[in-house]
Amino acid sequence: MTAVGIDAIEVWTGNLKLDLPGTFAPQKGEDPEKYTKGLGLNASSFPDSYEDIVTMAANAAHRLMERKGLEPDDIGRIDVATESAFDNSKPVSTYVAGCLEQVFDGDFHHANKGERKFACIAGTQSLDDAYNWIKAGRNRGRAALVIATDTALYARGDAGEATQGAGAVAMLITEEPGLVELSTEQGYGSADETDFLKPNQQFPSVDGKRSVKVYLARMREALEDYESVAGDVHPDDLAFIPFHTPFPGMVRKAGLLGYRHITRDTAIEDDLAEEIGRQPRAEAFDDEESYHDALREYMDALKGTERYREWYAQTIDPTLEVSREVGNWYTGSVHLARTSALKHALEAGRDLAGETLLVGSYGSGAQAEIHAETVCDGWEAEIEALNVDEQLAARYDMSWADYEQIHDAHNHDMDVDVEEFTAPDAEFVFDGWGRMGERKYRYVD
Amino acid sequence: MTAVGIDAIEVWTGNLKLDLPGTFAPQKGEDPEKYTKGLGLNASSFPDSYEDIVTMAANAAHRLMERKGLEPDDIGRIDVATESAFDNSKPVSTYVAGCLEQVFDGDFHHANKGERKFACIAGTQSLDDAYNWIKAGRNRGRAALVIATDTALYARGDAGEATQGAGAVAMLITEEPGLVELSTEQGYGSADETDFLKPNQQFPSVDGKRSVKVYLARMREALEDYESVAGDVHPDDLAFIPFHTPFPGMVRKAGLLGYRHITRDTAIEDDLAEEIGRQPRAEAFDDEESYHDALREYMDALKGTERYREWYAQTIDPTLEVSREVGNWYTGSVHLARTSALKHALEAGRDLAGETLLVGSYGSGAQAEIHAETVCDGWEAEIEALNVDEQLAARYDMSWADYEQIHDAHNHDMDVDVEEFTAPDAEFVFDGWGRMGERKYRYVD
Repeated sequence: MTAVGIDAIEVWTGNLKLDLPGTFAPQKGEDPEKYTKGLGLNASSFPDSYEDIVTMAANAAHRLMERKGLEPDDIGRIDVATESAFDNSKPVSTYVAGCLEQVFDGDFHHANKGERKFACIAGTQSLDDAYNWIKAGRNRGRAALVIATDTALYARGDAGEATQGAGAVAMLITEEPGLVELSTEQGYGSADETDFLKPNQQFPSVDGKRSVKVYLARMREALEDYESVAGDVHPDDLAFIPFHTPFPGMVRKAGLLGYRHITRDTAIEDDLAEEIGRQPRAEAFDDEESYHDALREYMDALKGTERYREWYAQTIDPTLEVSREVGNWYTGSVHLARTSALKHALEAGRDLAGETLLVGSYGSGAQAEIHAETVCDGWEAEIEALNVDEQLAARYDMSWADYEQIHDAHNHDMDVDVEEFTAPDAEFVFDGWGRMGERKYRYVD
Repeated sequence: MTAVGIDAIEVWTGNLKLDLPGTFAPQKGEDPEKYTKGLGLNASSFPDSYEDIVTMAANAAHRLMERKGLEPDDIGRIDVATESAFDNSKPVSTYVAGCLEQVFDGDFHHANKGERKFACIAGTQSLDDAYNWIKAGRNRGRAALVIATDTALYARGDAGEATQGAGAVAMLITEEPGLVELSTEQGYGSADETDFLKPNQQFPSVDGKRSVKVYLARMREALEDYESVAGDVHPDDLAFIPFHTPFPGMVRKAGLLGYRHITRDTAIEDDLAEEIGRQPRAEAFDDEESYHDALREYMDALKGTERYREWYAQTIDPTLEVSREVGNWYTGSVHLARTSALKHALEAGRDLAGETLLVGSYGSGAQAEIHAETVCDGWEAEIEALNVDEQLAARYDMSWADYEQIHDAHNHDMDVDVEEFTAPDAEFVFDGWGRMGERKYRYVD
């Protein structure tokens, strides 16, 4: 069967930056290491006052189409995943198409436009829709544009305030892709959970402790479901594991749990046994609680082993490099993690073609999905074309007062005018409101 | 290739009814025929105070699963389409799964749960996702549950107030379906339009005149796009054309335009020529305006011909029978139109197996999609199992004062307690709020 997957990818960060150890921590009277070590974050990206989920999505898509020499007629669907929508009926993808039609000849009238919402996992669900559409033979030779775009804001003073972020990831899904091929096999772990939600409100209500537990429980289910169709996963077979990254500290927990799971009954467990013993087995314990205590103890020991630390440094840590500098991009986060890993491999001169990524997506509410991706020949050229470092370096570094202003500017319940901190340059910008309350956009050369 | 399509369908109406000629018209001081003849509507369905998009969706799905003897393990995905969501992050499908887990053994942890939003077209988009998922070979033998659920409310006094409605349509998508097989071919007409939107608000802002124009323009584009891949459509080849039905009057316009389009250059045009002349051709006119005037004149004449009236009465009118009694169900509307047509055919003792439906879906913002469906052997049993008439007859007929109360009860900006008008019977009900603002549900025997 034809290979289907991601042909190319583009990233667009919000143009502003909040320094967590330098600006946020002093203001909160906290030790900077609470953020840099605890959460694993150095900075968050924010949209400037002329930016929003549409401009970031359209800018990422524009860059992608320009770079790949695409015209609207080459695109058969535009799927946008977001949990930051500003309209309860009209989808963001129509606005994005409207923006792109300003700068390309031709139009997207033939393209199916969609919007998916499921916390942070909808980007991966949209990727799957595009894959299935091509595999079903309905694409008429056209590619799909999948865009994950979010402005992840918390109420001021909320415990999640340090994990904010804003940006978009655009992906081109095609037959015979140039970056990664997706596996047919998928694993799901999905339950009706109340860990993070936004009932008729812009900013989330979060039960932080429960959210961490649910992330791990659903991810574990998804891994087991994936293994039930794709066979056992072995740590040495995986080049990278990009996870959804609400903050890098969460992924540290997921990585450890995943490693324990996939090394069970392998030679790695035997090798480690001398140092930290074998993994606890439920049947050896009288009750659930003592089993779980033993598991925790084993995991603590595992975390300290050289073998695990090396594996983590190679397989997981490179997925977090970009995330550390931009925070949580919600739907875009796991796709940024993939990008980060491939960028790291390129910079290290590593030959990844043919190697496997295991991708762990997650959305609160809650659902985890696991699938595999095979890196394609020629992947280096796609990653080389990105300008992530330049984008991050060009962000305006906000003072605390700037941050307070910009948070208000993006608060749907407030009506404030905030002057822009940066000058838009060859990008789409928000251009005020239309007569029916619609947002309007224009391209600035 | 394996046939994929709708195996079974279920409908769940809101338990209340507003009589348009009897209750609404007198209150507004309007001629009842403004509604019955102009809009083509007799009544609207409303949710009782214990009902919402989750209860209606879960009730339709429950009935469907019970009737088909399904267990959670038979379902691989639950996709909900709605433009009435009450959470900006957590999807309705997780709540629906939570409801169903209360009454079935087993759980839906293995099922991919999704939510799509694009005005009224998202139900069809979700149907397509399910079709593609099965065609892509990812369903592991499982079926998809696709549910379109909406509470279509307008602000009190809005021009759209007479076109409200509330209900859910649940569809089971499988290989070798029992009801209709979907075509691989699809046609799209999609543009960035400002005809109907809900910018950070529950009730829509609508430009009524523009909305009618955009519906027709996008539908025409979709038909042309469909014909470009599936070949010319001929009116005699179609058993029914279920359209999205914001109100039956809209479909009257779409039917007429569609008929003109698909009879162009056919023997039907020739037959009609003696009576009303041939269709105007653009090349025969000096300017756009006189061409459009001539088209309008031709359509007026066409509408009065016996040939068109018979075709309309056979092919379109039966799709509107249920809609006349329930109003606009947004995402469910086109799927209710299909159900209405099949129900009509069953009651008329018509043998439909092997016949073709052309389905015209639409969502403001805006996008139309056209695809074909082939009626399967045994379709009668599926339609016979429905209890639509009983549901409609059992609705509580609201007084004007009742209606005012229930509109407030479903207004997200109001916090009122309204006593229920009906007694729930073997159905899911809203059961109050949880500590994080989540809605809770329980099953009432």
